[in-house]
Amino acid sequence: MDKKRGEQSIVFGNPPVITSTAVIGGPMEGSGLLSAYFDKVMEDNIGDQSSWEKSESYMLEWVITTAIQKAKIAPPEIDYILAGDLLNQLMATHFAVRSVGRPFLGLYGACSTMAQSLLVGAMILDGGFGKNIVAAVSSHHDAAERQYRYPTELGVQRPQLAQWTVTGAGAAVLAATGDGPKVTAATIGKIVDPGLQDPNAMGPAMAPAAADTMWRHFKDLNRQPSYYDMIYSGDLGTIGKTLLIQLLEEKGIPLSGNYEDCGCMIYQAEQDVHAGASGCASSALVLCGQLYKLLLTGQLRRILLVGTGSLHSTTSYQQKETIPGIAHAVAIEV
Amino acid sequence: MDKKRGEQSIVFGNPPVITSTAVIGGPMEGSGLLSAYFDKVMEDNIGDQSSWEKSESYMLEWVITTAIQKAKIAPPEIDYILAGDLLNQLMATHFAVRSVGRPFLGLYGACSTMAQSLLVGAMILDGGFGKNIVAAVSSHHDAAERQYRYPTELGVQRPQLAQWTVTGAGAAVLAATGDGPKVTAATIGKIVDPGLQDPNAMGPAMAPAAADTMWRHFKDLNRQPSYYDMIYSGDLGTIGKTLLIQLLEEKGIPLSGNYEDCGCMIYQAEQDVHAGASGCASSALVLCGQLYKLLLTGQLRRILLVGTGSLHSTTSYQQKETIPGIAHAVAIEV
Repeated sequence: MDKKRGEQSIVFGNPPVITSTAVIGGPMEGSGLLSAYFDKVMEDNIGDQSSWEKSESYMLEWVITTAIQKAKIAPPEIDYILAGDLLNQLMATHFAVRSVGRPFLGLYGACSTMAQSLLVGAMILDGGFGKNIVAAVSSHHDAAERQYRYPTELGVQRPQLAQWTVTGAGAAVLAATGDGPKVTAATIGKIVDPGLQDPNAMGPAMAPAAADTMWRHFKDLNRQPSYYDMIYSGDLGTIGKTLLIQLLEEKGIPLSGNYEDCGCMIYQAEQDVHAGASGCASSALVLCGQLYKLLLTGQLRRILLVGTGSLHSTTSYQQKETIPGIAHAVAIEV
Repeated sequence: MDKKRGEQSIVFGNPPVITSTAVIGGPMEGSGLLSAYFDKVMEDNIGDQSSWEKSESYMLEWVITTAIQKAKIAPPEIDYILAGDLLNQLMATHFAVRSVGRPFLGLYGACSTMAQSLLVGAMILDGGFGKNIVAAVSSHHDAAERQYRYPTELGVQRPQLAQWTVTGAGAAVLAATGDGPKVTAATIGKIVDPGLQDPNAMGPAMAPAAADTMWRHFKDLNRQPSYYDMIYSGDLGTIGKTLLIQLLEEKGIPLSGNYEDCGCMIYQAEQDVHAGASGCASSALVLCGQLYKLLLTGQLRRILLVGTGSLHSTTSYQQKETIPGIAHAVAIEV
């Protein structure tokens, strides 16, 4: 059976089911808008660990093992773990997965990795290669800041267009069969480079990729935005969100009230994070926290999650390269 | 149809076909043992580019586009590119794939990424999600040295157990149907951590993961090593290779002459690279160069490629973490 649709999209034959999720957030995220949907909030941003990086790894391990418990299965029933993070060489992921002891495939889609792990996991299950998969990601504000920007202790003033990397992790157990919200379709993104070079302005760097993937999704599947109760981009932030709406309008796809960006849903206005949230955990906290619960209760019945990733490194920036973006879309339906 | 076998292995229902490969090597690799199988050899290690990292990106783009040409298909017929490299945030890959303009999924399995991209690509094709995929990886000696170890200009003396990161790139076009060597089975590895901490001794850090995956492969599929004409590990080097043979012997699996490590096949003895080759391009140059040609001519009919990856980063090393390894096995048969 050919499950490809159009240029870049797929429709699953036996849509895999999200049987459980788990979410952990840092203290800032715990003071934010969505903490009621978290399974756990860290008291501080390091916990019992000796570094921020190890703390991120701890969070990722915690959501993976917690999601498996909540799915009421034993770890050996997990066929594969698909996961990634923002640290060089997926440091948080490798040390988290090491102790779980299941077959592992590492993914890197920058902040789009939650959507990427879900769609690759769904392809693996729908292809008949297993019964249960964990899709998981993490990010950590302080670990990301000092890797991508400045030593955190330096206290460099952040520009107003900067976004705040989310400290947290999210995991979802995907199963080949069962009850629950299903991953029904996906669109795999191309790398789109608007030619920007400011590593603080990631929303504008990713918005064209998000617009391209969303436009392609609607075209490939012959759908209108109104097909979905809600459409969520991953971490465009306030500036990228405005830009995305403009770009889609220009492509003849007006988003009419059923669109929000995960990066604009996590923090309270008075937390003053400037242009919103970013990081792998931005879309993961929203999806595995609030959205999954609203899908379970039927308050949401059809959503499109468009994970967005900014594909730069400190080296590419120092070598005067531009910042390309990518976006992957995943349709989840009850 | 359930394609899972045992704990960690899969057998493809409609085994995808490798319809073409392309290989590029750096000047040292061009002076090595396998250059007759390369499509192109770089005259120096930077070419027309302004940095080693951009040179790596150029090589990866070159093999991707060349493999597509050799498969006699147009770029739009490629459904997805699956690729990765060793640079932070997959820098070489993103700028290579940007210009190819096809849907992209980024993978990170350290030096096991060639095997990982082949097996994930084969799962996607066998699952009915497309017709053609490119699986590709790159590495660059100088870019890797200065990222993982010391500034290259410093000329730090390398210990005898160190391996030499291969400068080069390899790509394979996988198709759902067609003639050629087929990806018939795979085993997805677990992270195995022998507790070593010397980032120069990557062979010993990866050998236990390779032994675990190979032992599991034979057990899951009820095969003996003699099922294969040849078994190749990715980049264990001379020390890791000896250790792997010992570890498998202890598990009751004697490797009897039909085993070699790709890291021991690339350089001449007088090139004095110490413990052999390493890097994503180690297994890629051997597989996409020599092995693919020997499979086409029938001199090899059944091989097992066991990609091996060392999952450390400079940060994890500085934070006194150990170096876990991973290995993924891919069976290719004519």
